[in-house]
Amino acid sequence: MKRIVILGATGSIGRQALEIVDAYPKEFTVVGLAAHRNAELLMRQATRWRPRCVAIVDDDAADNLATVLPAGIDLLRGAAGVAELAALPEADLVLNGIVGSAGLDSTLAALRAGKTLALANKESLVVGGKIVLEELEAGAGRLLPVDSEHSALFQCLMGEDSTAVRRLVLTGSGGPFRGRTPEQLGRVTVDEALAHPTWNMGPKITVDSATLMNKGLEVIEAHYLFGVDYERIDVMIHPQSIVHSLVEFVDGSVKAQLGLPDMRLPILLAMTYPARLATALPQLDLAQTGVLTFEAPDESAFPALRLAYEAGRRGKTYPAVLNAANEVAVASFLEGAIGFCAITDVIEETLGRHAAVEVTSVEALRDADTWARKHAGEAVRDRGRR
Amino acid sequence: MKRIVILGATGSIGRQALEIVDAYPKEFTVVGLAAHRNAELLMRQATRWRPRCVAIVDDDAADNLATVLPAGIDLLRGAAGVAELAALPEADLVLNGIVGSAGLDSTLAALRAGKTLALANKESLVVGGKIVLEELEAGAGRLLPVDSEHSALFQCLMGEDSTAVRRLVLTGSGGPFRGRTPEQLGRVTVDEALAHPTWNMGPKITVDSATLMNKGLEVIEAHYLFGVDYERIDVMIHPQSIVHSLVEFVDGSVKAQLGLPDMRLPILLAMTYPARLATALPQLDLAQTGVLTFEAPDESAFPALRLAYEAGRRGKTYPAVLNAANEVAVASFLEGAIGFCAITDVIEETLGRHAAVEVTSVEALRDADTWARKHAGEAVRDRGRR
Repeated sequence: MKRIVILGATGSIGRQALEIVDAYPKEFTVVGLAAHRNAELLMRQATRWRPRCVAIVDDDAADNLATVLPAGIDLLRGAAGVAELAALPEADLVLNGIVGSAGLDSTLAALRAGKTLALANKESLVVGGKIVLEELEAGAGRLLPVDSEHSALFQCLMGEDSTAVRRLVLTGSGGPFRGRTPEQLGRVTVDEALAHPTWNMGPKITVDSATLMNKGLEVIEAHYLFGVDYERIDVMIHPQSIVHSLVEFVDGSVKAQLGLPDMRLPILLAMTYPARLATALPQLDLAQTGVLTFEAPDESAFPALRLAYEAGRRGKTYPAVLNAANEVAVASFLEGAIGFCAITDVIEETLGRHAAVEVTSVEALRDADTWARKHAGEAVRDRGRR
Repeated sequence: MKRIVILGATGSIGRQALEIVDAYPKEFTVVGLAAHRNAELLMRQATRWRPRCVAIVDDDAADNLATVLPAGIDLLRGAAGVAELAALPEADLVLNGIVGSAGLDSTLAALRAGKTLALANKESLVVGGKIVLEELEAGAGRLLPVDSEHSALFQCLMGEDSTAVRRLVLTGSGGPFRGRTPEQLGRVTVDEALAHPTWNMGPKITVDSATLMNKGLEVIEAHYLFGVDYERIDVMIHPQSIVHSLVEFVDGSVKAQLGLPDMRLPILLAMTYPARLATALPQLDLAQTGVLTFEAPDESAFPALRLAYEAGRRGKTYPAVLNAANEVAVASFLEGAIGFCAITDVIEETLGRHAAVEVTSVEALRDADTWARKHAGEAVRDRGRR
């Protein structure tokens, strides 16, 4: 029986993890749940799974929760409360399903406490890759990827020596706008951007999939997770989302992980690893699928990929700025403040203005994040005034 | 430096293995070479690689070889000589690239001597699976697959627990006659059957690929190699021969091994395992390949697959009879004595007449083999008289 803490419990990853707990009651017990501000759902989840402890970031939400939380469940408050939950002594496994760079503190706290961390929060590695690796090397914690692409790479690397790896190939569906010209992309709506062809995910990551920034962030994530240079990480567009990623080895052999696009699969594997639990999920039938296609990404129509590679290669605080500027730009797009193509314009402009520093502490990252949000916000407002 | 014995050195697998030795002179040294009857090529190979010992089955060929073999290289004669070479004390690795059931004795000899055996001779497992497994369990020897499909399965299973396997899926190109009706198949020529669309192999296995018997034999081979029931081994047609096979796990995750169709890859891996050596072989570029397709095999046009599953499931001496009848029928087809569709007719007729016995010894297999060759030969002649 694994004792599990779920951070971001009310989000897409968290809810699917709880479905898994529900399906395998003998395998898992929930000892902690954390959310950002959805007190109502967190309350229902706490009532249903009876964790020892819950945490919620938003202050008003915490006040509401305090009045209705079942007896015997401790309430932790604020970002510090979530990070405290990430280090809960009785937890065997911490699932970090927090959205955005807010997830970094909990990642560091869990690793510092020697936890096995199932990481769905890619920003932990995109923003704080260097210090997360330092924490991993210093302690007893370990990382298991939850992103479907990184889970695929992880599975392809099982039983293989890291020196045998020639190249990682991250696949992406290409999003809802694959094949469109830059001109066509200038006219797309929020609803169109939220209609992902193959994956059912939260709004922020769905827009990131439409710009291909999601793939760019995944490249940086893969760089830190697997210790592979950017020159040896490629992105390939695969519209059917069946091949979740591939590893090419030095001898020329290639391994791929495949499956129907269902986040429950990589979440489950991270929760059960090194074991695999039998599921009754719909099975991939390639003879029925029939055709799998692959193509190079169109970097002229989707500049996010180039921006991410550049930020990754330049290192320092550039990836943190890339990520923060992207969060601001995507939120502005979702609010209707800027158009689709302006998302990457805002990021590029913000990166261009940034004077990067070495990442020696979480504070350096926080400063870069704050700086980037301010400048990206200005870039958004400039566009509004034009 | 691995000391290697190559059985079937003058055949397709053997010659490619020697190319590999040539490319990696610091990794391998050849200590033994064996052939069936090509004394001239074996002589040239012996002169080039200077093994301690060579073996040749054919008596006249042995006489010829004896007069020209460089000094200091021992000559072993007959099938017994080849089996003796398979157990050569100084060998670290024995590659069995013998064609047909003649390879079984060497497989058993190598395992009995505790060797690591790179097995390209699928008939060892098809015919003698039960006793090969007994030999493996009893001794220190181990098996590494060389067939591209089984190498693919082996690679997908690296680092995985055998209890996590739900299903093995062997892929096959479908051969040169994919999509043809039984009527069209009745008119195909030997040259057409020898023109394989994706793989460059010897004539016997190329005809087996055209009938799909090769895939059927591989199903039986996979059953013994990986200890998986026939109910959990599937065959899928994949004309591009890029995905070499797949493993589905109990959680629904699927792993595949991919590569350009080049036998040097699986031969090399078997020779270097657990390491992978860097190669400069042409690399798979899926974006260039573009499209991979998959379909169910047409079992009405290609009855060999059904015959192989039946023989495998019934066990006893049935697989030995399947294999021997197939060898006779394919040879007869290559000589122009029977048509393409008669290959499986002859096999089915021979299996139908067989009174199977339990396989308790190599002799039982030899008797079944002799019986099957005689009856398959009669079935061939019956057709000639019609």
